[in-house]
Amino acid sequence: MVTDRESMEAEKANERFYQALNDSNLERMEEIWSHTMAARCIHPGWDILIGWTAIRESWQSIFSAGGDLSVEAADVEVNVVGEVAWVQCLEQIRNTGDAGDQLSVARATNLFVRDDGGWRMVLHHASPIPSPMEEDDLGLVH
Amino acid sequence: MVTDRESMEAEKANERFYQALNDSNLERMEEIWSHTMAARCIHPGWDILIGWTAIRESWQSIFSAGGDLSVEAADVEVNVVGEVAWVQCLEQIRNTGDAGDQLSVARATNLFVRDDGGWRMVLHHASPIPSPMEEDDLGLVH
Repeated sequence: MVTDRESMEAEKANERFYQALNDSNLERMEEIWSHTMAARCIHPGWDILIGWTAIRESWQSIFSAGGDLSVEAADVEVNVVGEVAWVQCLEQIRNTGDAGDQLSVARATNLFVRDDGGWRMVLHHASPIPSPMEEDDLGLVH
Repeated sequence: MVTDRESMEAEKANERFYQALNDSNLERMEEIWSHTMAARCIHPGWDILIGWTAIRESWQSIFSAGGDLSVEAADVEVNVVGEVAWVQCLEQIRNTGDAGDQLSVARATNLFVRDDGGWRMVLHHASPIPSPMEEDDLGLVH
């Protein structure tokens, strides 16, 4: 039996993930993720990363790459069955670097498993999708 | 407590999914999927499909597109927590059409929920990844 509270807590865990990403905050990312070999992460266009050590390194690399990365999660849907929660959302990704603003969109599946400490992320799978927006309309530089 | 039997049954459900796909068998695909609005499907490079009706239409469209599509699942990993199973695998996709063989690879997250009838697919998220193989080595025509 899933309560609204469990669903809301899973949604908050998902929000904390995107907040840590937007803040380039590795310590907060560490709090969110499962620190096990079972953790899996697929960044948009990347191959799969296996286990927390590899995933942590990827975030460290992304956060230290410079530029300004922001990801806004839209269309957030939360499903909870027992100790597992999975979230679907649309990622609106803005990457500001030397080449100007680059805007892209991705679909994400985020999966959390509940333990004593709350919901832990065990899977982040994000994949690029065709942008619904015309780049010209946004006046972006590429 | 997850038993080996539960994990094996989830793996078999995943195998039936790829068998139905390779056989272009819509009836078998219907048996595998959850027929609810909660079902979600992201084909490689597509935006998300919401609910069984839209997902069924997509398989019908893929199966009737002609050509010869085969998907071999490799590196299959099954996780079961309670009534939820999620599977990671590498999809080796071969699409034979007028333009010859096209080979691509994708990473898939397949999520199943158990009901009285066994494991039902509620999510298929597949996304293209860079191919580890040089196309020239395979002698493919593009």
